[in-house]
Amino acid sequence: MRIAIDAMGGDFAPQAPVKGALLAREKYPDVELVLVGQESAIHGVLREIGWPTLPKGITIQNATEVVEIADDPATAFKKKPDSSLTVGLNLVKNGEADGFVSAGSTGALLAGATLVVKRIRGLRRAALAPTIPTANGRAVLLDCGANAECTVEYLLQFAYLGSYYASKVLGVDKPRVGLLNIGAEEEKGDTLRKETYQKLKEAGERGELVFTGNVEAKEAMLGQCDVIVADGFSGNVMLKSIEGAGKLMSGMLRGVLMKNAGTKAAALLLKGGLRDFKKTLDPNEVGGTALLGISKPVVKAHGSSNELAFCNAVRQAVEVARSGIADDIARDIDKMRLDRAEKAE
Amino acid sequence: MRIAIDAMGGDFAPQAPVKGALLAREKYPDVELVLVGQESAIHGVLREIGWPTLPKGITIQNATEVVEIADDPATAFKKKPDSSLTVGLNLVKNGEADGFVSAGSTGALLAGATLVVKRIRGLRRAALAPTIPTANGRAVLLDCGANAECTVEYLLQFAYLGSYYASKVLGVDKPRVGLLNIGAEEEKGDTLRKETYQKLKEAGERGELVFTGNVEAKEAMLGQCDVIVADGFSGNVMLKSIEGAGKLMSGMLRGVLMKNAGTKAAALLLKGGLRDFKKTLDPNEVGGTALLGISKPVVKAHGSSNELAFCNAVRQAVEVARSGIADDIARDIDKMRLDRAEKAE
Repeated sequence: MRIAIDAMGGDFAPQAPVKGALLAREKYPDVELVLVGQESAIHGVLREIGWPTLPKGITIQNATEVVEIADDPATAFKKKPDSSLTVGLNLVKNGEADGFVSAGSTGALLAGATLVVKRIRGLRRAALAPTIPTANGRAVLLDCGANAECTVEYLLQFAYLGSYYASKVLGVDKPRVGLLNIGAEEEKGDTLRKETYQKLKEAGERGELVFTGNVEAKEAMLGQCDVIVADGFSGNVMLKSIEGAGKLMSGMLRGVLMKNAGTKAAALLLKGGLRDFKKTLDPNEVGGTALLGISKPVVKAHGSSNELAFCNAVRQAVEVARSGIADDIARDIDKMRLDRAEKAE
Repeated sequence: MRIAIDAMGGDFAPQAPVKGALLAREKYPDVELVLVGQESAIHGVLREIGWPTLPKGITIQNATEVVEIADDPATAFKKKPDSSLTVGLNLVKNGEADGFVSAGSTGALLAGATLVVKRIRGLRRAALAPTIPTANGRAVLLDCGANAECTVEYLLQFAYLGSYYASKVLGVDKPRVGLLNIGAEEEKGDTLRKETYQKLKEAGERGELVFTGNVEAKEAMLGQCDVIVADGFSGNVMLKSIEGAGKLMSGMLRGVLMKNAGTKAAALLLKGGLRDFKKTLDPNEVGGTALLGISKPVVKAHGSSNELAFCNAVRQAVEVARSGIADDIARDIDKMRLDRAEKAE
């Protein structure tokens, strides 16, 4: 197993991805790593942290260009063919790596992955599929921003993608699929939701999905389902609202704990528990967001990823690669097509 | 000033609304109240809590019917003309009350308010406009579920409604309006967002609104704007995500505090601070959600409202009535029409 890491992407590149690779190599000794980026910059980091040579199992793939914020995400991979993004994706495409991790621009990674590594044949769209914390573990929420405007077929396919991911990568037995909506009843929501509901219900009746109906954002967070199906706009709003609420509440809690000597003493007593609490909400602990629907594993690490986050994103790419979900999806793609019912009739 | 209260609506009716009316009468002695509902049920509550007669300034308006969950929200007000909902709304319509508070079905209240009390002439849609906690106070989020599918003109009008509300009811000087989107840049989002962005920008350039551009849900929670403009679908997703995240985190925090003797001691030290923390997130403290765009004040109290929540919802209805925003909107309605630019040209 060999995972390529974009050494130039993210707020703390190249330090964080290089250190993350060293950490991942130590934690997962059966995984080889390829650092993709400017050779001199990568060596610079290694010198800084006192590694004169790379350990066995980590190699460098030189890439002279860097995708910048100013680059158009849709075309960056093409206009900068020697960027760490494009070179890394080509390693995956050509079978020289089994997965790619990048903390660079989401849009550029998505466009590049779709057009270089390619979508699984028959899938309409790839989806950003992060996991969110819930009252009984985690749920996968997709799409989360790759597709602001969706059709019924996109959403139907997201349900299958999420279901395979929850089952094969997160290890959930018979994952429950919920359609993110503004009410639980069948007739709730807009036209897109009403039509999608029917298609998901049919898939449930055929035994292909465990469809639990519409789910409101609140109930989803309380653990009502394992897969939350959303258009990229409302999925993104949900994800960012959770992040915002988490940040707001953490800040308020910090204020409560740091108020005076007595509360500071209390904070000390709570230290261990609060650490676990923070850990549950820390995106660095999760790793990254899988791009589901791409024919090989591509993981978007958070822009502000630290070395731990890169290490966890590598673990995630390995898990996706080992799960074989891309093969499962390719095999079952006919089930996920809206014209299948019409064809069968 | 006289506010009508639906004594039959909400999870804890008739107890909570009746007790809420008594509390509001005590706290706001210049506000008279009308309890609308089954006279016998209201008297039953009064006997239960040891009030043989109603205090001066609270009257009962008998209404024999009750809107039930099974009733179609769109037609309930019409099919049950002697329900607390319809009788209460008619009091407002006929000027016998200056505002109406109900914790009953949102859909039924919205339909009834729109068709009995009526929208302000020229407004396309009324909006549910709750306030949400942010890092620097509160922001009004609209629409939050009244309109799952929106047009550019609806969103433009919501921006004005929210801006008047923030300024006149919440007391914000020059409220900053943000368009809820999945990225901050002008070109982000779907067609609806891109077109709305331009209209809001123009309104900003005319000096009618303080438009601060697109806002992501996370930044909105961190206090980037005072008015968050959303279609009813994504606004509802945002609201419910915040509620879910709050509930999830509160539950986790409770686990941390109740773990052992040491953490319980810490919890005691933090008591005061945690109370304020909970208060900020408690929907009962806010009161309710204003239905903006209706020609007279109608406030939807949370379904699980307790007496404090009813009392706060009464305060909110009074504030809306005193603010005169319905008159402001009616006066400025021409500014909020999409055909105005074309007309002027």
